Parts: sequence; structure tokens; C-alpha cells
Amino acid sequence: MRMYDIIEKKRNGEELNEREINFFVKGYTEGSIPDYQASAFCMAVYFKGMTEKETVILTEAMAKSGDTVDLSMFGNLSADKHSTGGVGDKTSLIVAPIVAALGGKLTKMSGRGLGHTGGTVDKLESIPGYKTTLSQEEFISQIEKVGMAIIGQSGNLTPADKKLYALRDVTATVDSIPLIVSSIMSKKIAAGSHNIVLDVKCGSGAFMKTLEDAEILAREMVKIGKGCGRNIAALITDMDRPLGSAIGNSLEVIEAVKVLKGELDNDLKEVCVSLASEMISLVYSISYDDALKMVNDTLISGKAFLKMKEWISAQGGDTKYIDNTDLFRKAEFSRDIVAETDGYIASMDTEKIGLTSVILGAGRASKEDSIDFSAGILIYKKTGDEIRKGEKIATLLTNNNADFNDAVKMYNSSITVSSKKPEPKPLIYKIIR
Amino acid sequence: MRMYDIIEKKRNGEELNEREINFFVKGYTEGSIPDYQASAFCMAVYFKGMTEKETVILTEAMAKSGDTVDLSMFGNLSADKHSTGGVGDKTSLIVAPIVAALGGKLTKMSGRGLGHTGGTVDKLESIPGYKTTLSQEEFISQIEKVGMAIIGQSGNLTPADKKLYALRDVTATVDSIPLIVSSIMSKKIAAGSHNIVLDVKCGSGAFMKTLEDAEILAREMVKIGKGCGRNIAALITDMDRPLGSAIGNSLEVIEAVKVLKGELDNDLKEVCVSLASEMISLVYSISYDDALKMVNDTLISGKAFLKMKEWISAQGGDTKYIDNTDLFRKAEFSRDIVAETDGYIASMDTEKIGLTSVILGAGRASKEDSIDFSAGILIYKKTGDEIRKGEKIATLLTNNNADFNDAVKMYNSSITVSSKKPEPKPLIYKIIR
Repeated sequence: MRMYDIIEKKRNGEELNEREINFFVKGYTEGSIPDYQASAFCMAVYFKGMTEKETVILTEAMAKSGDTVDLSMFGNLSADKHSTGGVGDKTSLIVAPIVAALGGKLTKMSGRGLGHTGGTVDKLESIPGYKTTLSQEEFISQIEKVGMAIIGQSGNLTPADKKLYALRDVTATVDSIPLIVSSIMSKKIAAGSHNIVLDVKCGSGAFMKTLEDAEILAREMVKIGKGCGRNIAALITDMDRPLGSAIGNSLEVIEAVKVLKGELDNDLKEVCVSLASEMISLVYSISYDDALKMVNDTLISGKAFLKMKEWISAQGGDTKYIDNTDLFRKAEFSRDIVAETDGYIASMDTEKIGLTSVILGAGRASKEDSIDFSAGILIYKKTGDEIRKGEKIATLLTNNNADFNDAVKMYNSSITVSSKKPEPKPLIYKIIR
Repeated sequence: MRMYDIIEKKRNGEELNEREINFFVKGYTEGSIPDYQASAFCMAVYFKGMTEKETVILTEAMAKSGDTVDLSMFGNLSADKHSTGGVGDKTSLIVAPIVAALGGKLTKMSGRGLGHTGGTVDKLESIPGYKTTLSQEEFISQIEKVGMAIIGQSGNLTPADKKLYALRDVTATVDSIPLIVSSIMSKKIAAGSHNIVLDVKCGSGAFMKTLEDAEILAREMVKIGKGCGRNIAALITDMDRPLGSAIGNSLEVIEAVKVLKGELDNDLKEVCVSLASEMISLVYSISYDDALKMVNDTLISGKAFLKMKEWISAQGGDTKYIDNTDLFRKAEFSRDIVAETDGYIASMDTEKIGLTSVILGAGRASKEDSIDFSAGILIYKKTGDEIRKGEKIATLLTNNNADFNDAVKMYNSSITVSSKKPEPKPLIYKIIR
């Protein structure tokens, strides 16, 4: 078999078989197939696509290209949640303890933040003592005892995808649905959970800017997940405004704690309840409405909050900070954003808001940057809210005020104000099952 | 400027500007742009094409990527002939002396044979003493004195094309008209001749199998040649049968000598007369018919044959072999191909006939192979000819008879016989000016 023939076949729009796709993934991972053939292949896929069957084979081949996590000891209870990335998205910190409190086995390997989107691992590291690295044995044993664990990506997980993604990133072949889907799903398949809930973000702060694009991606991921034998569903949720009121690592942990304590009843809570309900419905094969009742009960009873503390403690985190979030270190400098006129917030460019948080030090412009855990943004007014001239609509926080003016400028440029109240938009557009 | 953006722009179907194309050619030649970006770019060009303007810029950029030959001292008399490659195609050996005998300055850098098609340089090396390498000064001085020179490709001509072609060859991106055209034409432009006649072969033994494809390629090459400021025309000629009666290096030299001596009046002569007439018409800006008369006169007068000897002698070749072609070494083993039934030859798979000559040792299966100058095929019956059972239709010649049976089998499989005389097909389909 020659890679040349595989490229040509795909270029001619033909369907590749299992042997051919496995040959490519194995050869590319090992290095016997060079980058220049892989990039030509990706460009051919960009133009000619892949069938559902091809994408399932590619996903499974990439999943098997390195280490895989065996969660078979948890039967059908293992559960994983994945977000396509947003601004202010701290849902994992809330959904995971809810699911674990209800008997699910939530096992999550999370990434770090880059660019305008944050990463769960960074947020968790703002809790003093929290360990984002566990050995395979510690990981499994914690899931057995506590019902959940959230760690950073470790080991040699999906090396084929790592290598291929880096190549696509420099050859203008990222924007291809089968390649995006196989990249995301291969990691989920390798991570081993039987039940997967996807949170596909849609809007100005998301990878998918339109509902149409988000729905195509969500439907494909659900199809491919099922094709790989998993229980899977996807929620398409709004990212035309940040989720919740806090952006920045410890600020987001604090907001998550408030939701679990029952102190907040906002958009963040609504999305988390939906994600958790969908997951519980998959785990126990029950209706969404029955699952929703269980989720609400566990929140009201305080069991989800207790589960959070149990989890943080198991992973070495200091739960005093969870009990009393005032203990988190405060940022040294703050600057209020003030409404310049009366009216309504008509739109928020969420990507710009994410970039504002990067300027403040809460995120990374490039992979090597370090993170300022207490920096970030507190948002008081969001799209649809009425504002009065002179009113505080947000506070920017940082420990390095050199670029404060840039941050203020960026935040202000992200908001448009109108005299008319804008049409309200849904928070959860669709659930794809 | 970033190569990423250039790939993305082409991928999105936009027209690249001069700065972008030059950036790519320069960067790729120097090595600052890696193969994996160039191959993704070529695949994007495969799907999205290039405008005439883009192709002219690419052609000129590749022509300028290395050494170029300055033929300005010959004014408008410099002439170059290029064939897209066929089986039994020894036209250069005939056309060049005709053009030189008529005052044109024919300067040709030729390639070696590979696969089923032969190469002019290999054919000339079958003449004892013939030097295919001349210094730049020797080359120019010979053209001044003799009016012509045919040498191998030397120096650092179009390194961008060399590198890019090698990459396209392993990434299934060869079959792209703008990339084919810029590859061929960049070499012609760098070689410096003002007048260019292309022989675009069409049929079973050619790169372009159909007249439609050949015409698309021919029209594009003529357009791009004009866009680069050259005088250019293309003949589309038949390659659904071998050209002439001899395949193999010294065998083809012998056939060329016979045409120039006036001893042969076959399809080979007809194509050569047309190519030479088209060239003379370009060189002197005269009508094709006036040029045709000059070409026929120079053949009949024996001047073209004398010019051949003058040229061979100038390049170190032993003209005794030209005066008496019986001196060429004969192959040790021969095997006749005999008609198995009465009828007509209905078709010849010319590629298979070329591959037969490779089995016999006359060509190369891979670049490293050496060549047996006296091996080859003498063909007595071609498409349309009547044959009688038991009649000799060809003779296979070799100095290594180990694979004789394979060669016989291959040759037999290349021919179909029919009881009905097939419709005659034109030898020269079209002239594109």
C-alpha cells in the first residue's frame, strides 16, 4: 500500500476503506509517512470530505494511536463532558460534581487555555494544592471512591491527532468537518467514557460563529460518537455573550462554587443543569425530565456542593477556599467599565472579551505564557440588560496594570449599545441526540 | 507575509498576486517554506486552479529561480522545440538540423528517458563520442557557428520547478493544468529561446490520453508562453501509435538519419516537416505554407542532412556512424513478432509498446537504470495496416534475453486485430497558435 494512492483516491472523491485509513494513521504517527503527504491528504479531505464510515474509522484509528484509558470497570456509568471552548465557560466545575453526586463516574481530561478561551486545568490550578496530574492508578481509584476526577491531558493520548492537528494548523486545513470531528472525538474515545455530552458553543466567542455551522458540527460528532459505540448527545449553547458573570481563573472557580451553593441562579446555572440532566439521562437511560428532577434535587440538597469539596480535597486542593471564597488572593489593580450612555446592551463580541482577559493576564496569547490566577473580568451587565449612563457594567482586574488602557479599550469595543431592547436569544439552541 | 495565508487564499478560490506567488517560489526554493505547506498549496491549486495571470507569474518566478540562458545575441532567431513525450519520438534529431540549415538558431536542452518514453539525450549518446554536456561558452559558440546544439539539462536550471515537481510526484498533485504548464514553460523560458514550438502528444502513449485534454494543455501553454513574451505555437500530434518504425536509442538515430537522407517518407517525416515549418514560420514571421516550401527544399537539397553531420561532429560525435549507420553495434538477440491471424491492426497500446522497449533494455524503469543503446523494437506494421497470418509485424532486439518472453507477451498484448480496416485517424490533429 502506498500513501500516494490513498491521497489520489481521496482527491478523486472516492471512499477510503479501513485498511487505507489505518495505514495512513499508523504510518503518519510512526513517521514513515511524511508531513508533505499528510498535508496534501488533509487538503484533499478539505475539498472532498469524508463519509460517516470513513470518519468513524479515522476517529477510532487516531484514538488507538497511543494510550487509551480503560474505564470498563465502571460499566455504563462512566461519563465525560466536552465543550468546544468559550469565554467564561466553567461548566465542568459544576456539571462534574452534580453527575458524581448522582452516581455517575465522571472522568475528565481537560486542556489548558489558549487565545480568547480559558481552560479547565488552569482554573482548577487557581485552587491552592490542587493537583492536575494523577497516575493512572490514582485517577481510577479516585473515580471509584469519589465518583469523579478532573486532570490535565497526560501520557501519550492520541499522538496521531496531536501530530496531525499541528500540521493542519499551519496548512490551512483545520476547517474541515470530518477532520475537526475525528480530532475531538478521537480524544473522547481514547479517554474511555461510555457516555459523552458535548457542549457545542455557537456565536462570536466560539469556533463556530453561526447556529448552522454549530449544528453541522454537533450532528456529525453525535453520529461519529454513536458510530464508535458510545452513548452521546450534544447541546448547542449560546456564546454570543460570555457564560456567567466571571472571566478569569479563580474568579470562575468562585462563580462555580456560588452556583453549587445555590447562591446564583443565572445563565451559567441553566446551561449546567441542562448539561448535567442530559448526562444523567444518558447514564441511567431515563428521560430528560426525570434526569432534570434528580439534578435539581441534588443541587437543592447541597449534595453537589459536598461532592465538589470531596473531589477538590481528594485531588489535594485546599477546601477552605471552597468554603470561604474570600480567601482567594485578590488582584492588585482594578478598573471599572462605566456606561457612556443610557440604553440597552445590544451585542457583545465575546471573542474580544476573551482577549481582554488575556491582556489582563488571565489567559495565554501563546502556549509558553504564564497565567495570573486572580486577573480577569467581573461582568454586571450583559446583552439585553438596560444600562444607565455612569453605571458600572464591568470591572477589570489585574496584577500588572501596564496594559490596562488596552484592556479597557478592548472591552469597550466589544460592546454595542442601542436605545431599543434587543430581541432575547435562546441560551440553549438545540439538543442533538 | 505568511505561507499559511497564501494557502488559505488559494483554498478559498481567490486570485494570488505577484508578491504572493514570488514569496512562495522564493521561499520554497530557499527552504524557508517547508514541503508540507507547498504540498497543501499544490492540492489547493489542483482543486481551485490558477488564472492565466497567476500562471504567467508562477512560470516566470520559477524560470528566474535559478540559472537562465541568455540568447539575446541571436535576436529573434533563437528557437526551441519541446515534446510532451512519446514512444518512438525522435523528431528533435530531424527538426533541429532542418531549422538550423534554414538559418534558425536551434538551442535545445533535453532530458533523459524514464518509463515508457525515451529521451533525446539517451538517443544522442548512442552515437560514439557525442558529448551531451557543453560549457555555457561552448554551447553559445556552437550555436553561433553551426546554428544548433542539443545538450542535456545542466547547471541550476529552474530549481523551484525541480523541487516542486518532485513533491507533486509523491503527493498526487501532478494532474493540474496550471502546475503542468508552469513546470514545462518555466524550463522553456529559462532556456531563453524567443521562438518555441510545442509538440503535444495525444493518445495511449502520451501523458494526455484524449484530444480534449491535449488541446486544453496546448492552449494553456501557448497562452502562458505568449504571456511570458515568447513567440509560440503548439501542434497536437497522434500518440495512439508509436511515431515512425524504430524504438530504441541507436535504432531511432538510424531512422532519423534515413529521414534526413530522404530515404524514408513516413509518419515520422510528416510530423517533423510540420514541426519545422511551424518553427520557421515563427522565426521569420512568414506563412506556414512559405515555411513548408523552405523546409521541403532543404530536405531535398540534402542541406539538412549535412547540417546534422556538422552538428554531430561539432559535439564530438563520430560522423562515420551517420554516413554508414550499419556501423552501429547490433543487438545480440532478436525475436520476431508474428501475426497470429489475418486482418488489420485495429489499435496499438503505445504505452505498452514503450514498456516493451524498457523490458528489452532500451529504456529506464527507474532513474538509476542504465541503458542498452542497441536494444529496442523495429515495427513493420502499425494501426490500419493489413496483416497476414504468419507475417512478421515487428522484431524485438536486446542484449539480455532473460526477459524476452515478458517482452513478447507485452508487445502482443499491446495490439488488437480486427477483420475490418479501422477508420484512419489524423497524424496531426491541430495547430494552436
